[in-house]
Amino acid sequence: MYREKLKVLDCTIRDGGLMNNHDFDFDFVRACFAAVSASKVDYMEIGYKNSRELFSPQKYGAWKFCDDDDIRRVIDGIESETRISVMVDVDRVNLDDVKPKKESPVDMIRTACYVKDVDKAIFLANHFADKGYETAVNLMAISKVLETDLNECLEQLEKECRAQVIYIVDSNGALYQEQIDYLVKKAKAILKSKEVGIHAHNNQQLAFGNTIEAIIHGANYVDGTVYGLGRAAGNCPLELLLGFLKNPKFDIRPVLDLISKEFIPLREKIEWGYLIPYAVAGILDEHPKTALALRNSDKKDNYREFYDSFASSSETE
Amino acid sequence: MYREKLKVLDCTIRDGGLMNNHDFDFDFVRACFAAVSASKVDYMEIGYKNSRELFSPQKYGAWKFCDDDDIRRVIDGIESETRISVMVDVDRVNLDDVKPKKESPVDMIRTACYVKDVDKAIFLANHFADKGYETAVNLMAISKVLETDLNECLEQLEKECRAQVIYIVDSNGALYQEQIDYLVKKAKAILKSKEVGIHAHNNQQLAFGNTIEAIIHGANYVDGTVYGLGRAAGNCPLELLLGFLKNPKFDIRPVLDLISKEFIPLREKIEWGYLIPYAVAGILDEHPKTALALRNSDKKDNYREFYDSFASSSETE
Repeated sequence: MYREKLKVLDCTIRDGGLMNNHDFDFDFVRACFAAVSASKVDYMEIGYKNSRELFSPQKYGAWKFCDDDDIRRVIDGIESETRISVMVDVDRVNLDDVKPKKESPVDMIRTACYVKDVDKAIFLANHFADKGYETAVNLMAISKVLETDLNECLEQLEKECRAQVIYIVDSNGALYQEQIDYLVKKAKAILKSKEVGIHAHNNQQLAFGNTIEAIIHGANYVDGTVYGLGRAAGNCPLELLLGFLKNPKFDIRPVLDLISKEFIPLREKIEWGYLIPYAVAGILDEHPKTALALRNSDKKDNYREFYDSFASSSETE
Repeated sequence: MYREKLKVLDCTIRDGGLMNNHDFDFDFVRACFAAVSASKVDYMEIGYKNSRELFSPQKYGAWKFCDDDDIRRVIDGIESETRISVMVDVDRVNLDDVKPKKESPVDMIRTACYVKDVDKAIFLANHFADKGYETAVNLMAISKVLETDLNECLEQLEKECRAQVIYIVDSNGALYQEQIDYLVKKAKAILKSKEVGIHAHNNQQLAFGNTIEAIIHGANYVDGTVYGLGRAAGNCPLELLLGFLKNPKFDIRPVLDLISKEFIPLREKIEWGYLIPYAVAGILDEHPKTALALRNSDKKDNYREFYDSFASSSETE
């Protein structure tokens, strides 16, 4: 029997945009929105709301900024109950760019932060709540956080933050089921007035398994991306989530169609998914940036040397 | 702290051979054996011991038959503590081909069977035990077995079979963690005198996660394959297992080297791993043969039509 409260958020364009400077063309994003809507996915996160003073529109595509008018160009005329989400990074948003909810096609704003920046995230989430949005806070790189810091962060979020959902984000793709189990139980115990979410990365082919694990222990907000598109090893494949979840409203077929028509060609242009350098970064609980750099070098398949480079660099610590 | 009793079996050549008629050349198999040995993997399964009366040596390569002399050509001169395993299928082995252990380089014989054939598997496993081999029974397609049949099968194995290990085999790549949890606990409860093993397929990117789940619940024999090579979506990637396990004897680096040198080129010749038709087969708990046929047709990327073909075919049941 399915869990009514369980919500699926597709963040294909947002996380996938980290691989192409958020420069997906409008037809592609519109095809994604149509398929995700037809599959009855609850939310689609379409990009970041970043300040144009920090990031050049010459270098980055529309989904780095998510202007309301650009979002309207994507969604207008498509029948949909899917709610639109955008992500905001601490210190990168210009609050004047965020109009009151009643003037915007955006429904939810998720604020991403490291645990050390939780005060800033609380300020932002409450600000967006005041403007009428659904809000969430995504706690990044949680595999690197000390227990006492995490406890304090979660307690502060429970007391001071009006976000409805707090996400555990395994940025490094480093966590195993037992750790997901522990973290979700902890978050559920402290965040009594909120829902817990999970955003997994697939470095060790555990994004789907860890998402199931989080669901088992009570996470009700789960992130997926079409064909796993996302930074480096990518994310939990949305099609697998839709195959697993028992709510009869979900329909996997529009997403299968989308993969055939749009993502098989895209895979020829952008490289993402399980590759050994990303697996190594996950195993060693390292940020994928070094592995991403390797894939763009002429040593992209020198796996042993890459693995050893971490061992030799940590000798100096 | 690591579990001394936990044994890793590499079955790259055996399960991967299902994708190329077991026709790997000797240098490739020798490179695998050298790397797996240097990584201190406990067992390497090198192929099937099939009867030449049933399978033509013109059509199939050496690893369909695993003659002792061919195995010696692979292993001779390589320093190794890795034990050699071969697999036998019920009704496909000529017992005269299996010499007594003291005359053979093989250490372990695993008998694969469906639950309905457990009597035959018990006969074979006991026969191989009499000849001096370590023995195991691999229960295939366990996602399709009725509870009462499985209970009876496990009870019979416990009473009548001298195999040291009984493997749960998720042939269809259909199982989720909760089901692995249930099956491993059941097997542990009934098979009090034996070890429980897990052999997972990666249709839903759950082979590694399900293997971890089985380990959590007490499975001590776990199968992996280099870079996940195996039938269709492949298996649990050996490199991820080696990254996860805490026994300091394991060394991931020779396997990383092997992937760079042998498996990146191989991937250009053989297609395996996560692909949507295999995911669909896993989600629907179907044998991958239909998906394998699709990948060899001109409709190989028509995913929605493939998904719908199962729905329309089951309307007649």
